Amino acid sequence: MPTLLHLDSSASPLDRSVSRRLTARFARAWQARHGAAGYRHRDLATDPVPLVGAGYASLGVRVERHGAPVPLGDVPSFATSPAELHEWSLTHPLITELHAADTLLLGVPMYNFTVPAALKAWIDRVTFPGAHVDPATGDGRLTTTRVVVVTARGGGYGPGTPREPFDFQTPYLRAWCTEHLGVPDAHLRFVHAELTRAADVPALTPYRDLAATSLSTARTTLTALATV
Amino acid sequence: MPTLLHLDSSASPLDRSVSRRLTARFARAWQARHGAAGYRHRDLATDPVPLVGAGYASLGVRVERHGAPVPLGDVPSFATSPAELHEWSLTHPLITELHAADTLLLGVPMYNFTVPAALKAWIDRVTFPGAHVDPATGDGRLTTTRVVVVTARGGGYGPGTPREPFDFQTPYLRAWCTEHLGVPDAHLRFVHAELTRAADVPALTPYRDLAATSLSTARTTLTALATV
Repeated sequence: MPTLLHLDSSASPLDRSVSRRLTARFARAWQARHGAAGYRHRDLATDPVPLVGAGYASLGVRVERHGAPVPLGDVPSFATSPAELHEWSLTHPLITELHAADTLLLGVPMYNFTVPAALKAWIDRVTFPGAHVDPATGDGRLTTTRVVVVTARGGGYGPGTPREPFDFQTPYLRAWCTEHLGVPDAHLRFVHAELTRAADVPALTPYRDLAATSLSTARTTLTALATV
Repeated sequence: MPTLLHLDSSASPLDRSVSRRLTARFARAWQARHGAAGYRHRDLATDPVPLVGAGYASLGVRVERHGAPVPLGDVPSFATSPAELHEWSLTHPLITELHAADTLLLGVPMYNFTVPAALKAWIDRVTFPGAHVDPATGDGRLTTTRVVVVTARGGGYGPGTPREPFDFQTPYLRAWCTEHLGVPDAHLRFVHAELTRAADVPALTPYRDLAATSLSTARTTLTALATV
């Protein structure tokens, strides 16, 4: 069954969040095509993933020292304290949920040049040592996963713009997805809504047409991506 | 009175955290030089800054639309709901604490190529629109602040290394400090402990000497920086 894991990370609710409206558009089109049974939504802003704690770090170090990838079901046998077991109980379901998805949809507003803390808390938790490698084969578990990243940026950070060097959102997520998750670069799609604040920040008024075009293109692209 | 704001963000306690031990070294030397009265410590891992909520975003947008920088004391007059006032009550003290510091000391382990979610939660909260500009003069409020960033990275990400393109920690913090805080680039100091996992991850064993040199240099540099 096709499965979509849809994560939102904007602090703002749907009616004031460009990234939420765009991911919702993708989710609707995807469900129209594939049905609702395989759809999962997680709101990282209103239902935050707890920050990783000391037990997460110590358990991760012990698993990593082991060398060979550890089957997820065996991780508890590496724990030496209730705190470590508790950290794993917060972590394992999120990893399982990620592995079950054929499409991962990330709604990512740019906050201070990069991803919101809400998304980073999820990233820090699911990136457990060896979790995304199949211990039986040594291959990545997410080599067939598709990742669709929807960004919303108040300003313009696209290729060739003066602010491109300040985009620590797109290159960062690309690096994390390929290196830590093992998702092939060809399976990543980034859809950007640029200059979202042109509507209301006086200094960005000259860019309203660019913003409208960017949003319109993002909408069309997402609908197309959801229906393949 | 000289004032040091010391922030730690490692999930691990002092005895298992390179970044915490290094910032503690700086803090001890600083206090030996300047006394304890101006020293402030905040542990972003064990005492997390709450994720910014919808009220933070809506209040920030309203203040930003105003155009001219708003005096911090006037921000509550822009609030239109108890939720916005609550968000500001979580934010204003952190901004005041930051402005009071002549030196900001950040302990930053690299988590998944960038800063921990714990630090990003603080960054997302203190980066309130216009907060770091003096409304009376239009100048930055942090033009004389010194920022000392202590990083600890399991691998090697220094200039010229194969992993340098995956460092979204140093260039990111440089961009945020200069562009959002208005701290001059010349006032930023980055001190790196590289290859901290060489001691225990089998694949990194060949780099133990490099790791030891990096740590030793970081210690010496931090003691020197603390005593000027």
